[in-house]
Amino acid sequence: MASYLITGASRGIGLAMADLLASRPASEVSTVFAAFRTETDELKQLVSKSAGRVQQVKIDVTDEASTKQAAAEVEKQLDGKGLDVLVNGAGVMNFTPNGIENMTDLESTFTTNVTSAHLVTAAFLPLLKKGNLKKVANISTTLGSIEWSPRYALFPVPAYKISKAALNMLTVQYAQSFAEQGFTFLIISPGWVRTNLGGDTADLSVEQSSTGVMEIIDNATSAENGKFYNIKVPGWENAEGLNRYDGLQAPW
Amino acid sequence: MASYLITGASRGIGLAMADLLASRPASEVSTVFAAFRTETDELKQLVSKSAGRVQQVKIDVTDEASTKQAAAEVEKQLDGKGLDVLVNGAGVMNFTPNGIENMTDLESTFTTNVTSAHLVTAAFLPLLKKGNLKKVANISTTLGSIEWSPRYALFPVPAYKISKAALNMLTVQYAQSFAEQGFTFLIISPGWVRTNLGGDTADLSVEQSSTGVMEIIDNATSAENGKFYNIKVPGWENAEGLNRYDGLQAPW
Repeated sequence: MASYLITGASRGIGLAMADLLASRPASEVSTVFAAFRTETDELKQLVSKSAGRVQQVKIDVTDEASTKQAAAEVEKQLDGKGLDVLVNGAGVMNFTPNGIENMTDLESTFTTNVTSAHLVTAAFLPLLKKGNLKKVANISTTLGSIEWSPRYALFPVPAYKISKAALNMLTVQYAQSFAEQGFTFLIISPGWVRTNLGGDTADLSVEQSSTGVMEIIDNATSAENGKFYNIKVPGWENAEGLNRYDGLQAPW
Repeated sequence: MASYLITGASRGIGLAMADLLASRPASEVSTVFAAFRTETDELKQLVSKSAGRVQQVKIDVTDEASTKQAAAEVEKQLDGKGLDVLVNGAGVMNFTPNGIENMTDLESTFTTNVTSAHLVTAAFLPLLKKGNLKKVANISTTLGSIEWSPRYALFPVPAYKISKAALNMLTVQYAQSFAEQGFTFLIISPGWVRTNLGGDTADLSVEQSSTGVMEIIDNATSAENGKFYNIKVPGWENAEGLNRYDGLQAPW
């Protein structure tokens, strides 16, 4: 009976993960804390149909005081128990159509995609230490792989790529710091998904992606601490080029 | 007869590079623009003994307006010529002694170490396009190698490591964007050097380091565009563990 907190849970992959977890038996999933900045109808519907198992938590992941307040609220709800799994899912991806030299969102993207994971992880760390699973999954992307950057050269999202390379290093630093305490920090590339962020022509449905992400989180042991995984999607394992949803490690 | 601009040139490796370049014959090096935020006696001395070949340029690398003003000033000095080589050397490294969860300098370090390279490169790009060599060297570190992070686990500088992984990705993005225009963007790890930043117990003198960095810049061709190099220091090629100054590529 595990508890989960997911940021970016009001839409996209975060919402789909909350939905998926809520569909599991209560013997497996006790509470899903769906953390969001902007409320959506979809999240409200999920909360209302969940009979109390999905709980909304208002958070601004870029604001330290807000993350601490959210942690205090969740602590009260957990009533002495720990938090088992944290998923840092909040993120943005903006296009830089006129050349990297005109990129204006480098710092704001870093704040939303990297600082956020740091602040949220730090705020929830005391609860995670009391949890049984001690898993933290940071949603990254293979576009943050420097090794693979040639294959993504035509995607004009430099701030996103830079922020995700930084997120990967942040995650590895946390993984090193808390390995001895039994933590498992994961870096997961959820694939190219038909969300607001990914667009309509993307490869995967949110169900395929969220299922793949949860599979990695479910199966992860401390042996996976600090590693960077692609999700595995049946039928996509051998897809060439940009799409390698083979469940294997991605290069840095 | 090439022109150089070096940021962070008032001390440490940047100052040593300016000094080294000024010692070369005027047939090789026309002007060294030593860009700095805080003036030092050492830089003043170098300028005064250089007979006009080293010129001071005041810059705040974290401020777009300042980088543009510095570029305008350098443009005037170059009098119609281009800038040949840009070295983004400015940077900070702070310690986070009480655990990564208490890291407070993530954003400020990102600004100084990553945003700076972006702003300075963007500001000087028009002059670099007019230059003959079109080389940009970003001073990074093997501490920014995610692959090698296990070997640096005991160095409590997470913001520095994260910022340098991001700088590496930034550099690769620039390298991709300007490859066809004949640019060579380099990522160079200058080694662990006895500077204010590196401390007294570091491996290398600033002369050894700056010589190694300049060797990479001198020899680089477009084949090296977007690559990440350790400097080569005689006698240190086979050093074990943290110190591999072998002139080879470092992993991401």
